[in-house]
Amino acid sequence: MTAAAPATAPAPTLAPAAATIAAAVEAERGRAQALFDRLKADGEDPPGVSRDTYGPGEQRGHATVAAEAARLGLEIARDPAANLYATWPGRDRAAPRIILGSHLDSVPHGGNFDGAAGVVAGLVAVAALQRLGCTPACDVTVMGIRAEESIWFQVSYIGSRGALGALPAGALDARRIDTGRRLAEHIADCGGDPAALAAGHRQLDPATVAAYLELHIEQAPSLVEAGVPVGICTAIPGNFRYPDATIRGTNDHVGLPRRFRHDAALAGADFAVGLDAIWAEHEARGIAMAATIGRFHTDPAQHGLTIVPGAFHFSLDARAYDAAVLAALEQAVLALVARIERQRGVRFDLGPRASAAVGPVDPGLRDGLAAAAAALGVATRDLGSPASHDAAAFAAAGIPMGMVFVRNENGSHNPLEAMTLDDFLSGAAVLTHWLAGAVGS
Amino acid sequence: MTAAAPATAPAPTLAPAAATIAAAVEAERGRAQALFDRLKADGEDPPGVSRDTYGPGEQRGHATVAAEAARLGLEIARDPAANLYATWPGRDRAAPRIILGSHLDSVPHGGNFDGAAGVVAGLVAVAALQRLGCTPACDVTVMGIRAEESIWFQVSYIGSRGALGALPAGALDARRIDTGRRLAEHIADCGGDPAALAAGHRQLDPATVAAYLELHIEQAPSLVEAGVPVGICTAIPGNFRYPDATIRGTNDHVGLPRRFRHDAALAGADFAVGLDAIWAEHEARGIAMAATIGRFHTDPAQHGLTIVPGAFHFSLDARAYDAAVLAALEQAVLALVARIERQRGVRFDLGPRASAAVGPVDPGLRDGLAAAAAALGVATRDLGSPASHDAAAFAAAGIPMGMVFVRNENGSHNPLEAMTLDDFLSGAAVLTHWLAGAVGS
Repeated sequence: MTAAAPATAPAPTLAPAAATIAAAVEAERGRAQALFDRLKADGEDPPGVSRDTYGPGEQRGHATVAAEAARLGLEIARDPAANLYATWPGRDRAAPRIILGSHLDSVPHGGNFDGAAGVVAGLVAVAALQRLGCTPACDVTVMGIRAEESIWFQVSYIGSRGALGALPAGALDARRIDTGRRLAEHIADCGGDPAALAAGHRQLDPATVAAYLELHIEQAPSLVEAGVPVGICTAIPGNFRYPDATIRGTNDHVGLPRRFRHDAALAGADFAVGLDAIWAEHEARGIAMAATIGRFHTDPAQHGLTIVPGAFHFSLDARAYDAAVLAALEQAVLALVARIERQRGVRFDLGPRASAAVGPVDPGLRDGLAAAAAALGVATRDLGSPASHDAAAFAAAGIPMGMVFVRNENGSHNPLEAMTLDDFLSGAAVLTHWLAGAVGS
Repeated sequence: MTAAAPATAPAPTLAPAAATIAAAVEAERGRAQALFDRLKADGEDPPGVSRDTYGPGEQRGHATVAAEAARLGLEIARDPAANLYATWPGRDRAAPRIILGSHLDSVPHGGNFDGAAGVVAGLVAVAALQRLGCTPACDVTVMGIRAEESIWFQVSYIGSRGALGALPAGALDARRIDTGRRLAEHIADCGGDPAALAAGHRQLDPATVAAYLELHIEQAPSLVEAGVPVGICTAIPGNFRYPDATIRGTNDHVGLPRRFRHDAALAGADFAVGLDAIWAEHEARGIAMAATIGRFHTDPAQHGLTIVPGAFHFSLDARAYDAAVLAALEQAVLALVARIERQRGVRFDLGPRASAAVGPVDPGLRDGLAAAAAALGVATRDLGSPASHDAAAFAAAGIPMGMVFVRNENGSHNPLEAMTLDDFLSGAAVLTHWLAGAVGS
């Protein structure tokens, strides 16, 4: 961690100096490392880590975090979605609280840091300020959120939206892709109360939350490219998704001449290449977006060496930071579909559509985090989040939201995530410095 | 079936007249329909028919054909590959015999006619000539061949090459894609003798076979397009195959900017679209070929809505009628692979390669079949076979080979195959007329 440089903005009067905060965070290095090690063991599933959403892996992660929070003397609470709240009581317990959090689940065979780093950072920030003898003005809650990774139930932000009473209709009936069991059953397994969620229970009234802050590894190597350890989030992208799209053509014999074919897989290939061209065009014009076809496959029950594929299946996730860009992108996707249907004699059925609005970052929090970094001498870049985050659900509920990204070499959602502990502690120090300013001594 | 028009070439002196043959084949309409119905029931597996190679479906089909052959008084024999031989004894039993045959297996959920029509046609031809009181000059064998559909074991022509002592090394260890069991075990289940095959047993000495003829549904709608019921085969394509190719990229998060991605599925899409462009170019220049990517898929254990695919799998079958075209095509495929590896930062592993030489049709048989059709007034087109056939294995063994195709609306390897019984009987009449000329009265 870089030692503090003189702050350009005056530090809040009651908060400790930057150098003091930096040293206190540095003193938590061992706790952070031990927590990451335990969380890795909780989800060990070579290659990588599987802290499965509402399954044994995530469950062990929650137990690990709750145990550490208890050691710090925090109050432990849970809600009907089985989210974990570890609260450091403030002087005024009726004042709106500050939440530092992220999720504890991972994708299958993912990395150890995606999600978990934000929860560990919350614990580190609290522990560092406790070490400095602070008592916060308001409650500070470290939140271990459930079920952020939408791969498991094909529903995003289950934990955070569950806490905010904003779970979409039907979500409790979604089935986990591997077990085939309903979300409601999985929540009950983990000690939650699906009936309360079904009745619209809201654990977090937005009026009682002053701010939600989330530290997260960057899910692209932009910070690596820029050579800085920390990013300050400017926005979280909105998206539209077609998790279960199908193309119907005709199963035919391998010898069929080209002019007679209705090859569903080739139509899928045409779609993927066409979408990539649309993205390349946006890239050339400097318009940020992303499009991912994560599932892309012939039918395992029917495909084979000597059959022209008659059916093809894919998922689509498309995202952008600007609602107008997103809407135009969806129109371009639909036009591409129509062109391919016409040219290749196939039919697309895009299936159910899901979407999320662009998640705005609170300008005051963004500036506050940037000022904290400057006070600490931590180099940063402003960064549109490549990924979706629970923070977007808080923003959608009207809660001021800010995010800190930490440099990460190899992307996320894979076992090769590479965040150094030094960079993590730099990000955690930014969060801690901001928190010290926000809650006083 | 069209009634006979006056033959342009004089009919062989000892053979019945075309009109007589046409009427005798027409009289077998009921037998043909009943056989097709029974074979369909043997493989019923909605949607379509699964007469699984060396499995219960194929086994029932062989029993059906053997029972019908016994009713016609034919001698039944089997070989170590469990092929079925139903022989009508000739006047000179030492003379080289004529084989009429095809295979009785099907792809999973395929149609009823691919393969089976050729065996039924053999029985119809024999029954029609028996009805006319003929005794053939040499033995005529209707052969029910095993295991032509390479989808099951990823090995082509198992039955015919097994009969000819030409099974490739290692074939007996190939595993069926659904059961995972070895070919040798499946052959033993069906009453065959894998040890004899392993020792190189050859049931059919090519010197003892005067000709092999196979009727088959056309596996493309070229005859539908041309408006004629029957095609005379001019050649069977050679091929090269990569049954199990893989592309390795990097699993990454859905938000990763385009410039950082190594998307294996998108590389696969690029490959499929590139291959299609190569084919379109051949098509425009009138060079016959076909290329099929039958399996084309992300990894079901890892893929998902929010993961950039790090691995992709596909199979490739490429075929042409000219060895030089085939060789140039493979070079073009390899160049395409190199271009995509370079541009997208992925690695292709094409895996094991298999190939088959172009299968030449005997010019005398081709002319003889065309003359038979002309004598019967059946309109035909010369046609390169779109598909591979057992006939190619006989040609490779030096046995004169000819094929008759029957019009079929909806391709094959799918449940919608549509051959009319009228067209089938036209094709069978061509075969029967040729046979009458070849074996005398």
